[in-house]
Amino acid sequence: MARPRIVIIGAGFGGLSAAHGLAGAAADVTVIDRRNYHLFQPLLYQVATAGLSPAQIAQPIRSILRRAPNVNVLLDKVLGIDKERRTVTVEDREVPYDYLVVATGARHSYFGHDAWESVAPGLKNIDDAIGIRRRILMAFEHAEAATAPEQRQRFLTFVVIGAGPTGVEMAGAIAELAHVALRHDFRSINPRDARIVLVEAGPRVLPAFPEVLSEAARRSLDRLHVEVRLGTPVSQCDGEGVTIGDHRLQAATVVWAAGVMASGAAQWLGADKDGAGRVKIGPDLSLPGHPKIFVLGDTALALDGDGRPLPGVAPVAKQQGAYVARLLRARLAGLPAPPPFRYRNFGTLATIGRRAAVADFGWIKLDGTLAWLLWGLVHISFLIGFRNRLVVMLDWLWSYVTFQSGARLITGSDSQ
Amino acid sequence: MARPRIVIIGAGFGGLSAAHGLAGAAADVTVIDRRNYHLFQPLLYQVATAGLSPAQIAQPIRSILRRAPNVNVLLDKVLGIDKERRTVTVEDREVPYDYLVVATGARHSYFGHDAWESVAPGLKNIDDAIGIRRRILMAFEHAEAATAPEQRQRFLTFVVIGAGPTGVEMAGAIAELAHVALRHDFRSINPRDARIVLVEAGPRVLPAFPEVLSEAARRSLDRLHVEVRLGTPVSQCDGEGVTIGDHRLQAATVVWAAGVMASGAAQWLGADKDGAGRVKIGPDLSLPGHPKIFVLGDTALALDGDGRPLPGVAPVAKQQGAYVARLLRARLAGLPAPPPFRYRNFGTLATIGRRAAVADFGWIKLDGTLAWLLWGLVHISFLIGFRNRLVVMLDWLWSYVTFQSGARLITGSDSQ
Repeated sequence: MARPRIVIIGAGFGGLSAAHGLAGAAADVTVIDRRNYHLFQPLLYQVATAGLSPAQIAQPIRSILRRAPNVNVLLDKVLGIDKERRTVTVEDREVPYDYLVVATGARHSYFGHDAWESVAPGLKNIDDAIGIRRRILMAFEHAEAATAPEQRQRFLTFVVIGAGPTGVEMAGAIAELAHVALRHDFRSINPRDARIVLVEAGPRVLPAFPEVLSEAARRSLDRLHVEVRLGTPVSQCDGEGVTIGDHRLQAATVVWAAGVMASGAAQWLGADKDGAGRVKIGPDLSLPGHPKIFVLGDTALALDGDGRPLPGVAPVAKQQGAYVARLLRARLAGLPAPPPFRYRNFGTLATIGRRAAVADFGWIKLDGTLAWLLWGLVHISFLIGFRNRLVVMLDWLWSYVTFQSGARLITGSDSQ
Repeated sequence: MARPRIVIIGAGFGGLSAAHGLAGAAADVTVIDRRNYHLFQPLLYQVATAGLSPAQIAQPIRSILRRAPNVNVLLDKVLGIDKERRTVTVEDREVPYDYLVVATGARHSYFGHDAWESVAPGLKNIDDAIGIRRRILMAFEHAEAATAPEQRQRFLTFVVIGAGPTGVEMAGAIAELAHVALRHDFRSINPRDARIVLVEAGPRVLPAFPEVLSEAARRSLDRLHVEVRLGTPVSQCDGEGVTIGDHRLQAATVVWAAGVMASGAAQWLGADKDGAGRVKIGPDLSLPGHPKIFVLGDTALALDGDGRPLPGVAPVAKQQGAYVARLLRARLAGLPAPPPFRYRNFGTLATIGRRAAVADFGWIKLDGTLAWLLWGLVHISFLIGFRNRLVVMLDWLWSYVTFQSGARLITGSDSQ
């Protein structure tokens, strides 16, 4: 009998964790991804703010899976899925499957204002991060060269839209870049004059965290001189700046961290989805009516015990990937299926800046230096590959000691 | 009396060394560069072959010069020089100077075949290196996905044109990538089947080195399974491959390392130049008839004591930059000018691969492991910035121990 073919689309946290769980199984596994690297997305904002290099938070998928001879990696772009013929269509051929795992993640959502993307880029992959890094660093260069004071101020104004973890981390990191790392680098401007504005339509920062931690994060942002504007959505974004409610703010650099939308997998699958594009799945993460198709991570709408959607964070995707691998192994071996998926929440963390973070473990809530140390520890230990761990640790130590931030390179073509 | 204004165009080895030498001098110094980083060009081929990350061999110019308050950095593109009005024209204004130092380096020369540039890119800056890295890594991906054997072989064939130090280093590094670093990463292809062909029109590799070292380099290339083709120039380069003399070679990846041409400074200055575009300068590196304009590094044609042109290498540029700074300091202080510039050759080095290099000190010639250790030592110790030195050293150690090469990321848009 031919070995069953398992196709995994997407090598993010979910897909990779499924692939790891299937290493050595009696099946031929193919991982398809548009990019050749797995990205440690929680640290991507540090690439965008010139704290880390891309190679420090990304690893080639092939390298990660090199020791799993039954796992094949295909660098290609998925165009569609044929559920009847059980094939995945990529750019120049069709890949047949017996079991399918869809873990394609999410992308930015501009809530219908797609034209804003070119002026307010979001942060999902390394090219995004390098582009934002170029914009931020070029803004300081333009400010240094500017002659009119209002132009200079516009170049020194940075707006981050959305105060979830990514927005808070971005705003904090830009503030540290301007107020600390760059402070001696310019002659005509003082980078400390930079204004960093964090805009949030809701009533508080980090809305998914308990209120006491939102307040702690708010205080940390104040200490970093980040201006926080709550309760009013952005009504306009253009090349000159943003409009918040009816207040106009001239700003050369705008970063979008306000919303994500599941990738187009629901459409490929012709499946039911929620307002954020997430595919509705059953308790074993399979597509209803299709027990051999699984959807997980940010692409899926999975519910917790109380019927609330699970958050779009790495631990959910990783646990789901491991679950699907376990389930498939049981099925291939003719063993009973494991009980329905249940997310074990070990706590959530968000960082604001140097020695400032918040941590929510349910039974205990932390903020300040202790939360930050914990955050650093957790992120370093989760980074894939010993080399990365070591280099990131050294980089952090070095930045911490010298207040110098490496990787401040402006590369690529200037799209501004 | 107003402080004299010194403008330095270019922050390569020459320009930066002049700026360093003028730190604290009684003059306002402006360094103009199109890019925000100084590049340690001798290691650029390692970025192109996925051994190092860009940030490990580049540093922001502002960071390097932050402790020199009389030195100003301007990120801008020079469009021309007006010798009469003594101004440098950049994109949106004019920068006046009293003294001018031109150190704009060199770019690739395709000997009249400019159309070859798009299929056989050269290696001068980080964007070039990232583009070549993408082409090399994508070639393996395409080979893995290819179904026809002749297509697969074409993707696994890499041609490096020109066997000077850069060409030899590139060919050796691609061979190591294919034969060692990637060997476990693929399932359909064996990266060890990759063919790496080094083409040189002249009769030997490393033509600028003594013959005995050319032979040693040739033996090292043989050990790395690099095919060396001497004595025949490339007559055609296109999207499918190259023609060497009348021999056709199908190859998806071609890298140009055959020739450089001085940047357009001679034209800006309306100056005499040689066939390679280098500006003819006097014994004090000044432009004949213009004692306040200096040209140095790869942009200049400087002669040694025997009337032979100095090579386009970093030590020449650095010594020339330091000389011009010394000369200007003397002039500003009303002291006698230093004697004419004289290049002190401390030796030349080229590396072929792991534990293979050649070194020529005139009085002694080395090859093999000892030359390689020396090469590593010299390059690490010359890298600007302690952080880079430490990280590069760790990276090398790590690659050496594990035969793993980091930084294998495919980023940017695919221009193939």
